[in-house]
Amino acid sequence: MKHNQSETPWKSEQWYTSPWNFAEEVRSEMSFSKNIQFHDVTLRDGEQQAGLIFNKDQKIALAEKLAELGIHRIEAGMPAVSKQDEAAIKEIVKRNLGPEIFTFARCMKEDVKYSVDCGVKRIVMEVPTSGHLLKYAYKWDFQKAIDQSVEATIFARDNGLYVSFFTIDGTRADISDYMHVVKSVAKDGHMDELTIVDTFGGLNPHAVPFLIKKVKEEIKKPLGIHVHDDYGMGSAITVMALASGADIAHTSISACGERAGNSSYEDVALALLTLYGVDTGLKYEKIYPLAEYFREMSGLRIRQNRGIVGEDIAKIESGIVAAWYKNVEGIAPLELSPYLYTLTGHPDAKVVIGKMSGLPTVDIFLDKLGLKAGDDQQKMEIVLKIKEKAFQKMGLLTLGEFEEIARKVLGA
Amino acid sequence: MKHNQSETPWKSEQWYTSPWNFAEEVRSEMSFSKNIQFHDVTLRDGEQQAGLIFNKDQKIALAEKLAELGIHRIEAGMPAVSKQDEAAIKEIVKRNLGPEIFTFARCMKEDVKYSVDCGVKRIVMEVPTSGHLLKYAYKWDFQKAIDQSVEATIFARDNGLYVSFFTIDGTRADISDYMHVVKSVAKDGHMDELTIVDTFGGLNPHAVPFLIKKVKEEIKKPLGIHVHDDYGMGSAITVMALASGADIAHTSISACGERAGNSSYEDVALALLTLYGVDTGLKYEKIYPLAEYFREMSGLRIRQNRGIVGEDIAKIESGIVAAWYKNVEGIAPLELSPYLYTLTGHPDAKVVIGKMSGLPTVDIFLDKLGLKAGDDQQKMEIVLKIKEKAFQKMGLLTLGEFEEIARKVLGA
Repeated sequence: MKHNQSETPWKSEQWYTSPWNFAEEVRSEMSFSKNIQFHDVTLRDGEQQAGLIFNKDQKIALAEKLAELGIHRIEAGMPAVSKQDEAAIKEIVKRNLGPEIFTFARCMKEDVKYSVDCGVKRIVMEVPTSGHLLKYAYKWDFQKAIDQSVEATIFARDNGLYVSFFTIDGTRADISDYMHVVKSVAKDGHMDELTIVDTFGGLNPHAVPFLIKKVKEEIKKPLGIHVHDDYGMGSAITVMALASGADIAHTSISACGERAGNSSYEDVALALLTLYGVDTGLKYEKIYPLAEYFREMSGLRIRQNRGIVGEDIAKIESGIVAAWYKNVEGIAPLELSPYLYTLTGHPDAKVVIGKMSGLPTVDIFLDKLGLKAGDDQQKMEIVLKIKEKAFQKMGLLTLGEFEEIARKVLGA
Repeated sequence: MKHNQSETPWKSEQWYTSPWNFAEEVRSEMSFSKNIQFHDVTLRDGEQQAGLIFNKDQKIALAEKLAELGIHRIEAGMPAVSKQDEAAIKEIVKRNLGPEIFTFARCMKEDVKYSVDCGVKRIVMEVPTSGHLLKYAYKWDFQKAIDQSVEATIFARDNGLYVSFFTIDGTRADISDYMHVVKSVAKDGHMDELTIVDTFGGLNPHAVPFLIKKVKEEIKKPLGIHVHDDYGMGSAITVMALASGADIAHTSISACGERAGNSSYEDVALALLTLYGVDTGLKYEKIYPLAEYFREMSGLRIRQNRGIVGEDIAKIESGIVAAWYKNVEGIAPLELSPYLYTLTGHPDAKVVIGKMSGLPTVDIFLDKLGLKAGDDQQKMEIVLKIKEKAFQKMGLLTLGEFEEIARKVLGA
């Protein structure tokens, strides 16, 4: 992990973001951990997304891709789910890909045994920690949750496992109840690290610094943050937790995951790099190819213009922006986007032809075709015909359609 | 606009979010405006998304839907784009739907005239405000930007228009340059309100309170925030700006918009209501139907499990969560999600059958079919066969497929 030491960390050859991000008053509120780790949950929580399913080979392939990207940890699954899952986990462990491999388990000896059998050295152990989820969904009381956690985490430790204690629904727990459970297990049971879990996505961004500070005061262990994206704020909340001193970010590829998904590692990693000056060492140029690969494999859809991973973010239709493109192309490409698309392996900026097109777009495409307009009136005629055609098609024009219009107007 | 006066604003009959959100230390950092307004940009910035196109009738239909939802303002388009746009704006103004109608214009008299001809009373007037965008994309200096702004905003005011001054690339401007442009236009030109514009999405969440405070110190007018979603943090940044005292949130339906899109009004409105205790008065139950309608009309895709607007967020596949469902159904439904899906008009929670299914799912569906298992071993056999089938299909099972498996195992 490297902190950007430049005097103007908001701009480099690859990005141009906001100087406001680095104002003294803004930076003074942050205290990033020295050892930020991405803990990828795609193969576990990710696959819990209704309808997503990976077979053994796909799981292994994804683990390999994540390793190539430089992800620090992979939560490879819950062995109890199926024989294929168990086999996938064993194979991922065996391949020794680089990232630390975790399994996921309930606080039960049986689940711990399953994990030990898979050969992992690290385990995420979940237990409910809010009074209401315990009461209604589990029909347990706090003491049962604590007792099970103590017993199972000690059993895991005694079996040589590194334990990440994963506190389900912790953010909807009464604050003192939550601290009671966590402190009890830290004292009487075993945890090598604590993961704060916003199971139902109900945390707001403002609460994050307070939450992290409170927990860090009591638990002197590495701290993880696992959030869900119910309000489309999962990535921002994760970044805020890291800026408040959390060490481990639970993230997934393109925010796949249970219910409304998890936090997207793409957002978090690129925001850290370009908005905060924190380089987590990922191979950023693999981000877009992995997102594409993942969509094809999983059937996950995303917004065509979803930040970072959308296929359309670099397409320019609007006439005003096409005019900028024309002026800055090859000279100042960061006047078109906050970072260069090559940074993430995304196809580069290009102008497309549609209803929003104006004169600059006509110039660009006449040039491309080696055609010349007699005057601006001819170009304007082409613009009008483009718009007409776009309304007919209710979509973008192809280059062929543009050429047909242009040749007709120019008599060429 | 109403502030939640409950002693436990994180829970109501319709939501259960995090008590951490309302801790004294957290709330003390917020200062919401008394008059928060949603300024919808779907018909302008939204349509600038490459490939999105609306004809006149669609624009009018969307304006009507937004009005029914209770959106406060609609930016109806840029009249210069096409005759259809101009006609749509005129018709939207004429229908007097309720929301304030704005047009969008460059700081040019010609654009102002177009708007006046459309019959609107309000206008958003854009000008570049960062030195580098001015230099490379416009080939202007600051004085030209200021002179054009002064002249055009006064012309707009003299034509009876309410002027929202829209500062392109303001967040990537040098801070003192930005304040210079804005103060010059406030003093020598005219603005009824100022919109801070994160054109290239390069603002981080931490910078937002500082930015809003700085600008509010100098400009004593209503303040708008217009962001882009390049890092998937547009909604969080918008909420943070509102919590810091911004008055107007520029948002779009489902985050459509130029490049990586805008901030999603769905996220912002529901977060304000359930995570911050701020009711902006929208008809929340229309949120999901409008999102669906919009996707059909526009061709916008979204993640199947995108928070609030995804069609799959309420589907439960995982065995652990299906067990919760079985216990809380009809008793404590908020143990399954941060808010009830009925709040947003979304189809309700339901269990689906897939590879992640376990015994609780079998119980639920045997019940549904009026079938009974002899013992747990039979149920376990059904579970294994479900998983097998899911791997064959690489997807969820239908009820019919489940029934076939169940009847075979049970001999029923």
